[in-house]
Amino acid sequence: MTTQVIVLNGGSSSGKSGIARCLQAVLPDPWLAVSVDTLVEAMPASMRTSEAGIEFAADGGVSVGREFRELEAAWMEGIAAMARAGARVIVDDVFLGGAESQQRWQKALDGLDVLWVGVRCESAVAAGREIARGDRAQGMAASQAEAAHRGVLYDLEVDTTRTESLECARTIAAQLSSSRP
Amino acid sequence: MTTQVIVLNGGSSSGKSGIARCLQAVLPDPWLAVSVDTLVEAMPASMRTSEAGIEFAADGGVSVGREFRELEAAWMEGIAAMARAGARVIVDDVFLGGAESQQRWQKALDGLDVLWVGVRCESAVAAGREIARGDRAQGMAASQAEAAHRGVLYDLEVDTTRTESLECARTIAAQLSSSRP
Amino acid sequence: MTTQVIVLNGGSSSGKSGIARCLQAVLPDPWLAVSVDTLVEAMPASMRTSEAGIEFAADGGVSVGREFRELEAAWMEGIAAMARAGARVIVDDVFLGGAESQQRWQKALDGLDVLWVGVRCESAVAAGREIARGDRAQGMAASQAEAAHRGVLYDLEVDTTRTESLECARTIAAQLSSSRP
Amino acid sequence: MTTQVIVLNGGSSSGKSGIARCLQAVLPDPWLAVSVDTLVEAMPASMRTSEAGIEFAADGGVSVGREFRELEAAWMEGIAAMARAGARVIVDDVFLGGAESQQRWQKALDGLDVLWVGVRCESAVAAGREIARGDRAQGMAASQAEAAHRGVLYDLEVDTTRTESLECARTIAAQLSSSRP
Repeated sequence: MTTQVIVLNGGSSSGKSGIARCLQAVLPDPWLAVSVDTLVEAMPASMRTSEAGIEFAADGGVSVGREFRELEAAWMEGIAAMARAGARVIVDDVFLGGAESQQRWQKALDGLDVLWVGVRCESAVAAGREIARGDRAQGMAASQAEAAHRGVLYDLEVDTTRTESLECARTIAAQLSSSRP
Repeated sequence: MTTQVIVLNGGSSSGKSGIARCLQAVLPDPWLAVSVDTLVEAMPASMRTSEAGIEFAADGGVSVGREFRELEAAWMEGIAAMARAGARVIVDDVFLGGAESQQRWQKALDGLDVLWVGVRCESAVAAGREIARGDRAQGMAASQAEAAHRGVLYDLEVDTTRTESLECARTIAAQLSSSRP
Repeated sequence: MTTQVIVLNGGSSSGKSGIARCLQAVLPDPWLAVSVDTLVEAMPASMRTSEAGIEFAADGGVSVGREFRELEAAWMEGIAAMARAGARVIVDDVFLGGAESQQRWQKALDGLDVLWVGVRCESAVAAGREIARGDRAQGMAASQAEAAHRGVLYDLEVDTTRTESLECARTIAAQLSSSRP
Repeated sequence: MTTQVIVLNGGSSSGKSGIARCLQAVLPDPWLAVSVDTLVEAMPASMRTSEAGIEFAADGGVSVGREFRELEAAWMEGIAAMARAGARVIVDDVFLGGAESQQRWQKALDGLDVLWVGVRCESAVAAGREIARGDRAQGMAASQAEAAHRGVLYDLEVDTTRTESLECARTIAAQLSSSRP
C-alpha cells in the first residue's frame, strides 16, 4: 500500500510545521499540510476565550471543552475524507490527551494507510525556541514536551533537538510505503 | 431542515472573510469558517509558482492547473464530510469558473442543506479596498468582481459596496433555515 | 513649505492603516508608513503583559506604563529624525491621551511641516469592523472612537463611516502643501 | 560606557530575529528590536516591484535602487536618534553590500556605543531552514550566507549552525559593556 496520511505529533515548538513544509518540498507528489492551528483559527473568536472552546493560560497550559471536541471530531472526519478522495495529507497536531488523542485519529482515519511520526525535542531546547519565535505563550513548549507523547505508538520518531527539520523530513520520506515499482 | 453549510462566493476584496467572521459572531451556534485561501496555504510552496498549481499574475489574474484541481476536489469532499459529521461550516470561495465552480461544490455538498450567498461589491470600490488592505496583487479585485458570479445561482445576495460586513452577516443569519421551534 | 509628516490619529478600527496604504499609492513620491502597532511589536514580549509596559484588557481597554512611555518618546524622536533626514513619513497612531498625546508629537516634530489629520468613524460602525477583522480585542474600537480625539486640533478630518479609504486618502493628498511650482 | 545599540548582521534565515527576541528576553532592561524587514514593509507596495525600490528575484537575489537607498539612509538616522534619545536598540539587518553597508551604519550611529555582531550559519543549513520557515524565496539564504559578511568587522560572532538562538543571545549579552557597578 501507499502511505496516504502522515501524522506528526509533538509538543508546541518541537518543529512539526517546519518538518511538514520540508516534507512538502522533498516529496515528489503534492501533499496538503493541515494543522490543528488552522482548526483553531477556523473557530469563532469567542471559542478562544470560553470554557467550552479552547483556553490558553498565561503559563502555557491549554485546555479544551465540549464544543471544541465536537468541532475537532468533525474536522478529523473531514481530513480523513480528503485523504480518501485522493489527497495526500500531512497532519500536524499536539496530542494533548496522549494515547487518547491518537485513538480519536485512528478511528477517523480507519482504513487509510497512516505513518505515525513522533516529533521529539528536549524540553529546554523547545522552550528556548518558543522564546525565539515569539508568537507563543511561554510555557507551552515545556508543558507539552513529554505529555504529548504519553502512551502514543509511532512508526517512526525524529528528534529536532540536534537534527535540522530538513534532515528529519528526509528520514520520514524514506519510510513512506509506496506501491511504486 | 437546518442549514448546514453557508457558501459565500465573491471576488477578491469583496468582503467575504469579514462577513464570515461576523457570521461566527452573530450566530448562536459555533460555525467553522474555511476559505480557499487556507487551501492554497496548505499546498506545497512549489505549487504557488507552477503551471500545474496556482499562479498569481502581476496583473491580478489567477490561473489554476491540474494538480490544484485535484487537491481542491479532495478538499471539497473533506469540507462536506465535516458538515456531515455535524460541524456547521461557512465556506469562503472565489468561483473563478463561475457556474462550473458552483457545480463542483454542489456535487461535493450533495445531500447537505446549503445556503448559497453571493457577495457583491462594485468593482471600483473593491479595487480601492484591495489597495487599502495592501496584501493582494492589484487587479485581482477588478478582474474577479463580475466573473466570479457568472451563471451562479444564489439563495441570497448581499452587497458590501455601501453595507457593512456585520449588517450583511445579520441579513444572511436571518435567512438560515432552522428546525428549531 | 512642503509637508514632511502626515499624522493620522483615530481610534482602533477607524481605518487609519488602510488610509496610510492608499496615501502611499496615490502620492507621487515614496512615503514611509509607520504605526504605533510596529512600535508595540518592536518591544520585548514581556512588556505586553506588564504594568510598566502596555496592557490590553479583555474589554478593549489599553493602559500604558512608564517603560512604554520612555520607549515611545525615543521612538517619536526617531520618527522625527527620519523626516529631518529627508524621508516623507505617514504616522498612524491612537492618541490614547488626546490633546496630551498630540503635545508629545508636537514637541518631537518641532520645526517640521506636519499635516494633522483626524480619522473619524462612528463608534458602532468601527465596532462592527473590529468584529469583521477579527484580530483585535472587542471593545477597543468603541472605547477609543471618541476619546482619541479629545482636545486634538486638526488641519483636516476625514470620516470613514460612509467614505472609502481611497477617497479619504485623495482628500488628504489634495491638502498637502507643496513648494513645487 | 554602556552599549546603546546591538547590530546583528547575517544572511537571510541565519537566525537574527530569533536571537533578537531572545536578547529582549534575557537582557534586564527593555530593548527595542528593529529590522530591515519592517523598513521594507513601511515602504509603498509599489517599491517592492520597482527598479528604484527593492526587488526580490525568484532565485533569491535581492537588488535595491536609488529610492530604497534614500529611505534607508533616513531610517538609519532615525534609528540612531532613537538610541540617542535613550532607547536601547537591537538592529537586525542584512549587509547586502558587506563592508560598504557597515560604513553606512557607522556613519549614522556616530558617537553611540555599538556592539557589532556577526550572525553566521552554514549555507546549507540556512537553506534548509529557509524551506522549513516557508515564507522566503528559496535561494536568499544561500546567496547571502557569505556575501553579507564580506569585509565586515565584528566585536563578536555567533554561529547558529549548531547553537540555539537563546544560547547565542546569552553569549552576546555577556559581551555588553555596562557602566553599572
